[in-house]
Amino acid sequence: MEVYLDNNATTAVDPAVYEQMKPFFCDIFGNPNSLHRFGAGTHPKMMEALDYLYSGINADDEDDIVITGNATESINTVIKGIWIDKILNADKNHIIVSEVEHPAVTATCKFLESQGVSVTYLPVNEEGIVDVQSVKQYLREDTALVSIMWANNETGKIFPIEEIGQICKEAGVLFHSDATQAIGKIPVDVQKANVDFISFSAHKFHGPKGVGGLYIKKGNKLTPLLHGGEQMGGKRAGTVDVASMVGMGFAMKLAVEALEYEATEVKRLRDKLESAILELPETVVIGGVNNRTPNTTLISIRGVEGESMLWDLNQKGIGASTGSACASEDLEANPVMNAFGSDSELAHTGVRFSLSRFNTEEQIDYAIEAIIGAVKRLRNLSSSYAYAPESHKSGL
Amino acid sequence: MEVYLDNNATTAVDPAVYEQMKPFFCDIFGNPNSLHRFGAGTHPKMMEALDYLYSGINADDEDDIVITGNATESINTVIKGIWIDKILNADKNHIIVSEVEHPAVTATCKFLESQGVSVTYLPVNEEGIVDVQSVKQYLREDTALVSIMWANNETGKIFPIEEIGQICKEAGVLFHSDATQAIGKIPVDVQKANVDFISFSAHKFHGPKGVGGLYIKKGNKLTPLLHGGEQMGGKRAGTVDVASMVGMGFAMKLAVEALEYEATEVKRLRDKLESAILELPETVVIGGVNNRTPNTTLISIRGVEGESMLWDLNQKGIGASTGSACASEDLEANPVMNAFGSDSELAHTGVRFSLSRFNTEEQIDYAIEAIIGAVKRLRNLSSSYAYAPESHKSGL
Repeated sequence: MEVYLDNNATTAVDPAVYEQMKPFFCDIFGNPNSLHRFGAGTHPKMMEALDYLYSGINADDEDDIVITGNATESINTVIKGIWIDKILNADKNHIIVSEVEHPAVTATCKFLESQGVSVTYLPVNEEGIVDVQSVKQYLREDTALVSIMWANNETGKIFPIEEIGQICKEAGVLFHSDATQAIGKIPVDVQKANVDFISFSAHKFHGPKGVGGLYIKKGNKLTPLLHGGEQMGGKRAGTVDVASMVGMGFAMKLAVEALEYEATEVKRLRDKLESAILELPETVVIGGVNNRTPNTTLISIRGVEGESMLWDLNQKGIGASTGSACASEDLEANPVMNAFGSDSELAHTGVRFSLSRFNTEEQIDYAIEAIIGAVKRLRNLSSSYAYAPESHKSGL
Repeated sequence: MEVYLDNNATTAVDPAVYEQMKPFFCDIFGNPNSLHRFGAGTHPKMMEALDYLYSGINADDEDDIVITGNATESINTVIKGIWIDKILNADKNHIIVSEVEHPAVTATCKFLESQGVSVTYLPVNEEGIVDVQSVKQYLREDTALVSIMWANNETGKIFPIEEIGQICKEAGVLFHSDATQAIGKIPVDVQKANVDFISFSAHKFHGPKGVGGLYIKKGNKLTPLLHGGEQMGGKRAGTVDVASMVGMGFAMKLAVEALEYEATEVKRLRDKLESAILELPETVVIGGVNNRTPNTTLISIRGVEGESMLWDLNQKGIGASTGSACASEDLEANPVMNAFGSDSELAHTGVRFSLSRFNTEEQIDYAIEAIIGAVKRLRNLSSSYAYAPESHKSGL
């Protein structure tokens, strides 16, 4: 049996989404900006896709949703656009992010630091989230942007976006949220959340890879990351990838329709898997079980190195990922494990299971059996587990 | 009958390319960077695609070909990377481009000018190309980059890339060529051409939209446009769009295999179409007929406004484009018409026909009849044609 439990890394395209995309490869292939029928033929489905995207995140008609190549591009567009507009060409010089952001945020901020920009990396608390008051505390006169993720890719922890948005709004500071791990898992309402920008990627919610979105609240201007033609109202140049845009729109529609299923059935299967693992001694859910996306669990299993576990599961047809950046080539990894890392061993023992609406009960039962077998086998092999001091064994 | 003659704007995905892409939507969908079988399953076809790309442009194994979202992204990556590396963080301050570059180049340069960078826009000569000596003439001590297109999108004129590359090499200045309109139409050999960077988009050679390439000669480093994960060796972050990468690779393979057909059969059909139009009085090929891509003709038909012509042809199922930026929403338009614009009327009368290997003799015969009919009808309606002074009528 093959069981894919790495949906926070990427998802399969929903066959219904693929059906929507198909005509736009070989048949309805015109450039949307062309005047003739071959170009115009693309418009109805593009408009429909935009409708799904706007209603999916409750954007106002006057807001912009710019179609990009992925969330990484959206994020770079926001952060570098603000660097150019508010820092290079104005008098701001400070950005606030959390220390558990995706590399698309942190690597971009590291680059900005090399250019003289001051960046504050907010720590997360024991719950794995940023404390709302810490945002307020670090705001400065010259703060140009606050960028805090909507939900964490490793733990699934949901951040207090509405409250942070309110603080930013009151302070007159722009607020971006990387919503890549939130869309399709929990409701995302940009108006309720007081965000100026959000970023997302279609391939995280059963849409195609190579396409993402950037929400820009009305009134906000950004120097584009991609200069060129006047596509997307001059906000993102480059011929629009119609098939992918149509696919992302339809994937958004399906994802929003499935939110109730996600919150109940997907959560039930995630909880079933998690509970079964937690019955093993010395296992712990990183960041705790409260306030998470319904599909994600990041579990530390003492004595079991994450990567070894992955290889063991891979042999049995199960795909998961480690939660530790150092133990995996998986680029989704982030410093969240280190943020909890008073115990250095812990950072090497995390395994992330991330489900989707396509996982079945049968798959989860199979995975539970395989995981328990793998833990037993690997713990038998593990000298660090066998010889761990008692204080370590119970300290989690 | 439907006849698509706007292949310089975009092309249909070759059905054989689409076949290669299909498995990577719903079936082989893993993140290539994941350790498990779902990720690893993507690797063989990605490697094969890279092979096709490397051999298609004759890149050295040690060179890089970075998969991007489109040529616009590739171009922005080069120009802005050099801005950051050689201008903001070093002592260069000058860029040379031609005045007929695609907006991806010129709009990016306009942005750099707003940031204090000095940009020289080289004029084109009566043949529609940049004079090799003018590149030499405008090189400065602080020139960071020369960016000259390989072939023009409107006229199809082929630029003297090898010679310009040689001049840049001797001067120790980096050289980028936007090869978007060259690949699949004429041989592109990056080693022979002395280029440091080239940019291209798959959708111009019967690959999918939403994916492009950036060739980087070994030894050249660029601050990435997309910071984030370590995909593409840190040169372009963001989950790789496997389906599109596989599609672009296979499209490159097919395009290179079809170059001989392009140079003979596509050229024959283009010439047949062009000759038939040129039999009408007061018609002229902009930039002349020498040294062009085999698929393109940009024709001025006095007394016939380009946009009116397009609408007329569109009614008959024929897709073409105007060569004039002012007369079209087509974002491919560029200032090439103005570059020839001693005659202001001329700038409004260009129509570009761009063929591909999928056009048939029957289609071209149908198009010829339709075009001749449209010209006669529109000239009868045209007061400017009827009342044009004799000097204008013969002046072309």
